[in-house]
Formats: sequence, structure tokens, C-alpha cells
Amino acid sequence: REEVKMTDNAVFSQNKVLTIDTMNPNVKNVEYAVRGPIVQRAVQIEKELREGMKKPFTEVIKANIGDAHAMGQQPITFFRQVLALCSYPELLKDNMFPEDAKSRARRILQACGGSSLGAYSASQGIDCVRQDVARYIERRDGGVPCDPDNVYLTSGASDGIVTMLKLLVCGEGASKTGVMISIPQYPLYSAALAELGAVQVNYYLNEEKCWSMDLSELERSLAEARKHCNPKVLCIINPGNPTGQVQSRQCIEDVIRFAAKEHLFLMADEVYQDNVYAEGCQFHSFKKVLFELGPQYSNTVELVSFHSTSKCYMGECGFRGGYMEVINMDPEVKAQLIKLVSVRLCPAVPGQALMDMVVNSPQPGEPSYTTFMKERTATLSLLAEKAKLTEEMLNTVPGITCNPVQGAMYSFPNISLPQKAIKEAKALGQAPDMFYCMKMLEETGICLVPGSGFGQKDGTYHFRMTILPPTDKLKLLLAKVKEFHQKFTRQYS
Amino acid sequence: REEVKMTDNAVFSQNKVLTIDTMNPNVKNVEYAVRGPIVQRAVQIEKELREGMKKPFTEVIKANIGDAHAMGQQPITFFRQVLALCSYPELLKDNMFPEDAKSRARRILQACGGSSLGAYSASQGIDCVRQDVARYIERRDGGVPCDPDNVYLTSGASDGIVTMLKLLVCGEGASKTGVMISIPQYPLYSAALAELGAVQVNYYLNEEKCWSMDLSELERSLAEARKHCNPKVLCIINPGNPTGQVQSRQCIEDVIRFAAKEHLFLMADEVYQDNVYAEGCQFHSFKKVLFELGPQYSNTVELVSFHSTSKCYMGECGFRGGYMEVINMDPEVKAQLIKLVSVRLCPAVPGQALMDMVVNSPQPGEPSYTTFMKERTATLSLLAEKAKLTEEMLNTVPGITCNPVQGAMYSFPNISLPQKAIKEAKALGQAPDMFYCMKMLEETGICLVPGSGFGQKDGTYHFRMTILPPTDKLKLLLAKVKEFHQKFTRQYS
Ligand SMILES: Cc1ncc(COP(=O)(O)O)c(C=O)c1O
Ligand SMILES: Cc1ncc(COP(=O)(O)O)c(C=O)c1O
Repeated sequence: REEVKMTDNAVFSQNKVLTIDTMNPNVKNVEYAVRGPIVQRAVQIEKELREGMKKPFTEVIKANIGDAHAMGQQPITFFRQVLALCSYPELLKDNMFPEDAKSRARRILQACGGSSLGAYSASQGIDCVRQDVARYIERRDGGVPCDPDNVYLTSGASDGIVTMLKLLVCGEGASKTGVMISIPQYPLYSAALAELGAVQVNYYLNEEKCWSMDLSELERSLAEARKHCNPKVLCIINPGNPTGQVQSRQCIEDVIRFAAKEHLFLMADEVYQDNVYAEGCQFHSFKKVLFELGPQYSNTVELVSFHSTSKCYMGECGFRGGYMEVINMDPEVKAQLIKLVSVRLCPAVPGQALMDMVVNSPQPGEPSYTTFMKERTATLSLLAEKAKLTEEMLNTVPGITCNPVQGAMYSFPNISLPQKAIKEAKALGQAPDMFYCMKMLEETGICLVPGSGFGQKDGTYHFRMTILPPTDKLKLLLAKVKEFHQKFTRQYS
Repeated sequence: REEVKMTDNAVFSQNKVLTIDTMNPNVKNVEYAVRGPIVQRAVQIEKELREGMKKPFTEVIKANIGDAHAMGQQPITFFRQVLALCSYPELLKDNMFPEDAKSRARRILQACGGSSLGAYSASQGIDCVRQDVARYIERRDGGVPCDPDNVYLTSGASDGIVTMLKLLVCGEGASKTGVMISIPQYPLYSAALAELGAVQVNYYLNEEKCWSMDLSELERSLAEARKHCNPKVLCIINPGNPTGQVQSRQCIEDVIRFAAKEHLFLMADEVYQDNVYAEGCQFHSFKKVLFELGPQYSNTVELVSFHSTSKCYMGECGFRGGYMEVINMDPEVKAQLIKLVSVRLCPAVPGQALMDMVVNSPQPGEPSYTTFMKERTATLSLLAEKAKLTEEMLNTVPGITCNPVQGAMYSFPNISLPQKAIKEAKALGQAPDMFYCMKMLEETGICLVPGSGFGQKDGTYHFRMTILPPTDKLKLLLAKVKEFHQKFTRQYS
């Protein structure tokens, strides 16, 4: 530390206390592609366009993040009515809102301290919301029982995932906790593991089989990991991000048997549970399959499942609503979990209210039911159309191969890149698909995320694009991708 | 790991993957008194009362947490109108809302993706909200400039505090980061440090001098800490929780000079900046004083200041709104900070909107101004009255000594406990003031937090009580505390 004497004789350091060299190295290791350099450049380009800079395009089309409302999807009317009523309860006196919206709002307010969204809730979440979540899970899973005590409301699924990993990760050296994650993955996982200093254990999804999970690959990955760390956790995303696959019941069964046999804690990220489009595909919750395997499984295998208000037909990302359900968690650990979530006081209460409406939506006979169902169905049908459109259009491009978008909100096509492009990228110290996506952004205004941000088999290249832009924009985007890819291929051949 | 063969030949472990012995030991070390055993018992007692169990009281009075709305404080009408408008923009067409509420709502919605609170915002927070925060800080600090790039919106102040500590903490053994915190402290700090595995370095506030900070005590504490860790950070809470003191300008100046001299990063928790009641006391922001000390300080000392929607006259805890401003942060570290906050996508957008209204409240001439000022002033005057009432009533009890509640929302009186009570508590393995508070809860229904949850000088005992209950309840509570204390003292003498 260098020092200088100042005029008043105090000593001032020339160096900062907090620098890139003195900061937490785990934080330095974190990477988060979904909001990485491509997105930062996209924001910059938008500014340049506004300032009148000339570009070969007039607008940036963002297909980098699963942010439905930002792409023009409309919120569910009923949800927003209830939120307005809860925010400003004077509106309860008005006649402009349907009775079911009013009664939902009254019920939530009664469960809040001082009948206000502005009071801290219980750290685990508002009691009646957790009860509604439990009943929702029971309905969803054909009657498999759910105890509200096992339900924790969270600030989006992100919060729940990070909290669970925080509980699970410990040890140093060869006994450091290993966490198995799919490759490609949603980069929250790798980021959280880097931050916690845990060992990321990769298992590869099978691109040839529509990004399914292979038991043999799980076995390979686990055996490999056991040589240098203590693998304790297996994370699954279903329906998949970035890959858009929907797992078969058989596959889920295999994964559960594997976890039981290998003594692994299961983390099932099921935030896309309503986003299933492909014929023959269906969402099976890990919990339901676990219980169908019989008590020797359902009484032993430790499982946590995550859900969120951000995806499905709601797309309410900004409210940061979510829940997790824990199964077979040790009661002492549960007490620790409750203590841990207490430190941050509580998840945002409007997000909890929104989660309640998702799990306790208008029922047949209630005044808002018809509109609710119309809006829900319209959004999901449109997503299904766009999933199909995206797959079909991408597969018309020579050098791009795209698996069916069975579910979720993304396609993750394989792109062939010419050797010359790969070389040029490497010379620049860039991942080849980053080089490709950056060029696409500069030339077309289209903002995608390179596959390298999610992980992929060595020597393969991908990008992730959401299916969320409005249909006309999506078509434009896909046409531009096609044109760009062909031009890029010619240029580097 | 014990194993058993089951009928279907699969192998099932008898042991759980995640147990109290295999979980993250740092999490195990976390303590959080504000929602600890006393509060859990209070919730249980409320249930017992509802179920008709006979008790020497008919209701639990909670004075354990700074949760204003839960204690009956009403939200600011204007804030809630804007939130309702943002939640359900159809209301913009209605004539029931004042024009200034509508224009605020329009401005916020325009800054949201797809004009919806349901879109993710930028991870650092919505641009226009950060600009409004910057202008608010400039007004507050008499024109000291504030760059919106230095402002980060957070999920309550808690989130910002934890994030900053996460950046700062690293190292092992003697080079592990030490973080200086006041004793008594707000237990978020000790909890976050335990979770991060950092070294908590205690400096004691001077109870005799109205809980002020002593330079000599800071020096003692730092010298002590340097023997076994690497102290890099100094945290200050002003106005104080749990102690209710408001720091003098001189004291703040001394602390800044100390931090400059000793090369410490300053964290100023200023969430109670509007909660100043005592005559002669005034809130001075660390930033303002820093800039008044001249460029050799304002260009070098690293400072972060936290604010929140949860306290002051708003009391909007449930929305989890907040911001932090960083001063003199290394640009490379800033990039790391932005990356880190990106992982969790963004703070809840309704909380960001609420933060905006706090920093951009109705102005003279706008239709909502008069009502806003009336509501704000009424709340703050009432708090000032209750601060005075609490101090005066507590000081009438022999064996209780209470410093003036100059600011914030708490008193932290010193209680003399008879030796016999101390012995009995220790025999039960309880902190003596925990024993006292638990007994008070069981006998009177009053829920306070023992001083041991915040830290205190060895051999001294305290409790923290909020001044938030409605005046009549607060009077009842104080009378019951008096009666209980006298009875308890007789019983154990
Ligand atoms: C698989 C998956 N899990 C979790 C999340 C986190 O979402 P949120 O925190 O908004 O609920 C996302 C967001 O895109 C996701 O795709
Ligand atoms: C001193 C202090 N800092 C921070 C907080 C955290 O508040 P929030 O996260 O609700 O903004 C509190 C809450 O009581 C507090 O007293």
C-alpha cells in the first residue's frame, strides 16, 4: 500500500481498499451470459440509434432473455386487478372491479400485517399463500399430498435456487460439494456455484436425442466427479432452458432411481411447467413421479422443486414471485433454512400476492373465469405457434440444425461455423459463437446469446434465442438470421 | 452411510444427503434474533389464544420488529395510488386519481420493458429511477453531485448490504477480511458475516454518552483485530438500530478521518435518515460530510450508503425497495458488482417504483402535495411523541435506564437483573436477558428482543423495543413492562 502525506498531514492511500485484486475471488469467477457483453453492446447500439447513428438496421430485436412482457405479452387482467386492489384498498369501494378480484384482494390483505402489502410477511411467506400453493401442487399432481410447511415463497425462482445451494455447499479440497448440472444449463447455476466456491459437475444433454438426459452420461459424469470432489446434488431443468426439451416420464423415473441409488439431493427447476407445446409431450413433476415410484422412494429421496411467476402464461418477471417445495428435508435442516431466509426478512409481498393468484386462479362460475381462460389460452397457443415457427424456419437454413422446441421459451440450434471464422475468433480471444453473435448484432441488430454462455460439447457451437418476440418480429428476426448465417458462411469459406 | 436392500433390490440410504452435520457450517453459525425463538414463541402463543387457551393476557403486543404498517401505520396515499395505476394501467383512464399520480405512473411505466411492471428491469435498476435517486441525494446533501451510475437499486437495504459484503470478503486465516461493526448492532450484519465466513470485529458504542461512537474505541478494536485478521471495512448505522442514537457531525467527521487514515472501506447504513426526533439532533449523511472534508477525502475514501423504503415515514417494508450509492469505487470492481447483481436478474420492480416515489415525492403546486405533506408530517410527529413517551416511561422504572431515543424506531434500555435470575438463566443455558424477555412474553404477552441478540458489553443486559405500537397500546405496553420488571426483580431478590 502506497501512501502520500497531504497538506493537512493526514495520510491518504493511493490505492483503493476494494480492487479487482483484493475483492472476493469467487465473485470474480462468476459469469452470467444472459446479461453479458452482447446484451451490454445491444443497449449501447440502441442508444447510438437514438442518437441518429447510421446502422444497417433501424431497431435492435432482443431475443436474449425470457422476458415476456418486455416482448409485448399482456399481463392477465385478473392478476393486475387484484394487485391494484391490494395496493390501494380504497378501490375495494369502487364498482369497477369484479367481485372475485375483490374477494381475492380482501383475503390477501387479511393475511398481511396491518392489512397492508407494506408489512413484512413471515420469512417463509404468507401462511394463506403457502396453503394455496400446497393445494395447487396437490391438484397438479393428481392428489399427491403437499404440506404447506414444506412450501417456501421466494423472490423469483433464482432466490430459491441460490438459497438451496447455499445450504448444500460445504467442504474443501476433495470433500468439497459437487453439484451436477446439465450442459447446456441456465447460467444462474454456474454463477451461483462459482460464487459459493462449489465444484460444478457437468453432465451433457444428448443433442441427437432432442436434448434428453442419458443415464449413462449421468453415470460417467458422477464417476468422474467422485475422483476429485463430493458430488451431493443433481440439478435438472424441465422443461429445459436453453434447450426447450420436455422430459419423458421414463426419463424422470430413471433420474430419480439414479439419485436414490447414488445418494444425491435432487433440485428440479420446473419454472416452465405450463410451457409445453409439442404433441405427445406432457409435463410430469418430479414430485409426482417420485410418489408413483412407491414409499421406498417417496420417503427417502430428498427433492426440492422450484416455480416462479416469471414464466408460463404469466410472464410476470418484474414482481419476483416464486416458491419452492422441499420433500424429505431433515427437520433440523428445515429450521436452519427458516433461519437463513429470516435474515433477509421476507420475499417482496406483491410477488407473494401474485404467486397466490397463479395458484388460486379464477374458477368456473366466478365472474373473471372466462376472460382469464381466454387470456391464458391465447398466450399459450401463441407460444406454441411460435415454437413451431422457430424450429421450422431455423431448419431451413443450411448449416443450422434445430431440435423441436417442445417446451419452455427458447430454441438452441446448432450452428456450423467455418474454420476460418473459428480461427479469427480465437485470434481475438473470443468464443467462436460469441464472435458470430456479436457480428450478427452489429450487422442485423439481432441480440442472441452465444451457446458458450450456457455450455456445450467442445467443438460444437450454438446460440440461444427466445421465441417471445411478436410473430411478425419473430418472422423478421428468423429471416435476418437466415440471411446473416448464409452471408457469414460465405464470407469465411 | 448406512444402506439397506429393499424389496425391489434398489439400495436406499438410511441417511439423508443434507443433514445438520453435512450442511454448510457457515449457515449453521448464522443467528438472527429479530425473528428468533422469542418471536416464534409469540406466534405460538397467538395461536394458543385463538384456540381459547387461558393466559394472563388477551393479546400479544409485538414490539420486536421495525414493521410500521403491521403496527397500524397507514401508507402514504399518493404512493399507493401510483402503485395501483402502475399495476393496472386501465385505471389511467379513470377520473378518480389525481393528475400527478397519473403522470408519475406513466413515467415509470414508460421506463419499464413493454410498459409493464412485469418485465425484468436492468439489474442495476430502472434508469429513470436511478436518476431520480441521484437528484434526491443532491438535494439532501445541499448540492454535492451524485452520478446515477453510482446508484444501484436493491431489494430492501438488506440486499445491498449483503451484496457489498459479498464483494469485500475474502482470504483465509490471518488474511481473512475483518468487518468492523458496532455493538450493539443490527443482526443482519453478524448474520451476513457468519454466512460469508468473514471475521466480525466488534467496536462498542458508548452507552454512557448516549450510544455515541468513540474514536479511542475504534482504535482499540482495530488494533486488536489486526493481530488476527485483515480489517478492511467499517460499518456504521446512523440513526442507530437498536440504539436510537443520531450521530453528530463531528463524530461522522472523526469516523471518516479514521477510515482514511486506516484504509477502511466505509459502509453507512442510513435507512433511518428521516427518523430524527430529538431537539438539537440532525441527520448528516456520510457522503455530505465526506465532501465537506475536501477533495483529499472525497476523492479517496471509499463509501457506500444504503437507503430503503422500509423505514422513515413510509414504512413500506413488504415492497422490498431500496438503493445504495457507491463513492470512489474502483471501475473494475463496479463492473464486477454489476455482473454479480445480474445473476439474480433485478430487484422487484414494484419496490423500484416505490423507491422512485420516495425520492420524487409530490412537489408544491402539485395536486397531491398537501395531503402528502400532511400524512408525512403526522407520521413523523407521532413517532417523535412515541420516542419521547418511551424514554420517559422507561426511566420511571427502578432498574431500567434508557437513553433518549434521538432517532430510528427503537429504544434499547439497560436493565438490572438480580443475581438469582442470572444464575437461573445460566443454569437453563439461556442468556439472562433472553430468560427475562421469555418470562415477560409468557406473563404479559409482550414481545421484545433480548439485548443479547444485538450484542452488548459483558455483564450488561438490555432489551430492544420498537416505538411503533399505536400510542394507547404503547402506553399499555410500557405500563406492563414496568409492572413486570418490578415483579421480576422482587421475585429474584
Ligand atoms: C430455468 C430457469 N430457472 C430459473 C429462472 C429464474 O427466474 P426467476 O428468478 O425470474 O423466477 C429462469 C429464468 O429465466 C430459468 O430459465
Ligand atoms: C439498520 C437497518 N439496516 C437495514 C435494515 C433492512 O431493512 P430492509 O431490508 O427492509 O430495507 C433494517 C431493518 O430493520 C435496519 O434496521
